[in-house]
Amino acid sequence: MSVRRVLTGITTTGTPHLGNYVGAIRPAIAAAKSEDNESFFFLADYHALIKCSDPQLVARSALEIAATWLALGLDTSRAVFYRQSDIPEIAELTWILNCSAAKGLMNRAHAYKAAVQANEDNGDDPDLAVTMGLFSYPVLMAADILMFRAHDIPVGRDQIQHVEMARDIAQRFNHNYEELFVLPEARVDDDIAVLQGLDGRKMSKSYNNTIPLFDSEKRLKKSVNKIKTNLLEPGDPKDTADSTVFQLWCAFADKAAIASMQQAFADGIAWGEAKKQLFELINEELRGPREEYERLMADPGHIQSVLLRGAERAREQSVPFMAKVRAAVGIRPMA
Amino acid sequence: MSVRRVLTGITTTGTPHLGNYVGAIRPAIAAAKSEDNESFFFLADYHALIKCSDPQLVARSALEIAATWLALGLDTSRAVFYRQSDIPEIAELTWILNCSAAKGLMNRAHAYKAAVQANEDNGDDPDLAVTMGLFSYPVLMAADILMFRAHDIPVGRDQIQHVEMARDIAQRFNHNYEELFVLPEARVDDDIAVLQGLDGRKMSKSYNNTIPLFDSEKRLKKSVNKIKTNLLEPGDPKDTADSTVFQLWCAFADKAAIASMQQAFADGIAWGEAKKQLFELINEELRGPREEYERLMADPGHIQSVLLRGAERAREQSVPFMAKVRAAVGIRPMA
Repeated sequence: MSVRRVLTGITTTGTPHLGNYVGAIRPAIAAAKSEDNESFFFLADYHALIKCSDPQLVARSALEIAATWLALGLDTSRAVFYRQSDIPEIAELTWILNCSAAKGLMNRAHAYKAAVQANEDNGDDPDLAVTMGLFSYPVLMAADILMFRAHDIPVGRDQIQHVEMARDIAQRFNHNYEELFVLPEARVDDDIAVLQGLDGRKMSKSYNNTIPLFDSEKRLKKSVNKIKTNLLEPGDPKDTADSTVFQLWCAFADKAAIASMQQAFADGIAWGEAKKQLFELINEELRGPREEYERLMADPGHIQSVLLRGAERAREQSVPFMAKVRAAVGIRPMA
Repeated sequence: MSVRRVLTGITTTGTPHLGNYVGAIRPAIAAAKSEDNESFFFLADYHALIKCSDPQLVARSALEIAATWLALGLDTSRAVFYRQSDIPEIAELTWILNCSAAKGLMNRAHAYKAAVQANEDNGDDPDLAVTMGLFSYPVLMAADILMFRAHDIPVGRDQIQHVEMARDIAQRFNHNYEELFVLPEARVDDDIAVLQGLDGRKMSKSYNNTIPLFDSEKRLKKSVNKIKTNLLEPGDPKDTADSTVFQLWCAFADKAAIASMQQAFADGIAWGEAKKQLFELINEELRGPREEYERLMADPGHIQSVLLRGAERAREQSVPFMAKVRAAVGIRPMA
């Protein structure tokens, strides 16, 4: 079997939390170790501009997220790890793909439709506060993917449509000009846990129920103690099925530890004790990376140099490929 | 008075004709000689992709149009003359401006609305065959203009709206981030002749009534002979008011020659004789440039080197300016 190229974009808004770690970062870093894959990871800072017009936050988040992935052991000698905005060919390809992308396709994008629906529900102009960034975002994402001729795009269900749009745009280009683009496939892993947050809903920044990944030990302990539980007393048998404490436990424990916590729940472990053990388990896994994260955050020059090396490797692909794309559409050296 | 920066884009589709020459190229080259102006001229090849998916034509047209402007005496030691696609910062700025551009603004663009109207008139989906290139074109044009902090944009009346959109996008960015962009102004020169074509309508490729600018002498003569006239005989006094021959004459003759042709019309000059004199007048003005054009077309390497020098000068502006724009939105060096 030939090596599959896997591409993952990481939007640089906000600070990573345990849900991101368990649901996305940890499995991606593990998958990048496979010899069957060639992995591309990039910090999607052009995408961040759609959602965030606070420049401090955009800048800070790129740094934090890069430090996070490095601290968690992303092997950048294998994976190509770069910042989207360090690859000028991406923006150029975005324009060229605009000319092969049907506007009607964008009209049907979920994120755009949701914005329109919300405006209509409020009796507002359908396009109120919709920017061309939001509307064109699937074209930028197509450029991210098609530039590196990625085969597989690991996504959540809500992102499948965007990968299909990238395929559609690629097909049109291939048909109108030359067969340059690989048609990417969305890869959805339904086995990956969607972590619950402090209040039992999906852990998400928008619910304000997250546990930040690299908070200090003290704050992590505090967060874990805040996890919502029921009013059962120590000694009362407890149900694992609807317990956020147990769900988090499973995301970090091995099989034996899961079984023993199951037993402890049946035996009526006190919530305080269960949370204490949960904190220790999570902290055990994160202690080393957290120290590494802090070292990295204190040395942004190193992070930058790692990303620039990644960008160099990415551009070994994007520069010659872009020359082919330009030639295909007629933007050619004159002599 | 401080020097005004004047920016003109030239879409690289099709072969220039006498209408382009009289209405756009000749006055622009003359204006570029003024000490009050600093002129930027660029071959808009990214724009060409919206209209033209024939790569040969896109490539050929860029060459022909560059050769045309050079042959007509554009002074590239003063004016900055470059190809849009040689400035990678343009595509990047386009994306960043997307994030400050309201989609609602694009909904109101004339070119887009005309396409929708035509579809609706045919009972088709409103966005049938509308690409994101067509829809986003005002954002690309805003990037062309705002990148070089141009003050004045000479345009036809149909393009005023696009300059206003560039102002609107610039204002939003300046308000949300930092006062980086100069607000451009559309400059419409109503004195400039709209040349009539062979059939008496406006000379335009879409009417198929053009006289190509650098056709051979023989073909130019043939074209001039095809200009539509009425059936008046030699000796019959002729009206200058509705005569394409006379209108073309005025576009090339000096005052004395205009007066003497007016007299000749009154005296009943034969159409054949008037056309012969018209051909000679046009040919006199174009002979030298035509020879130069042919020399240039035989030496595309020279044209390319002129454009690359122009791109270097343009990038002396765009590279540092883009660094400011990136920093303003939060895309910053990490260390």
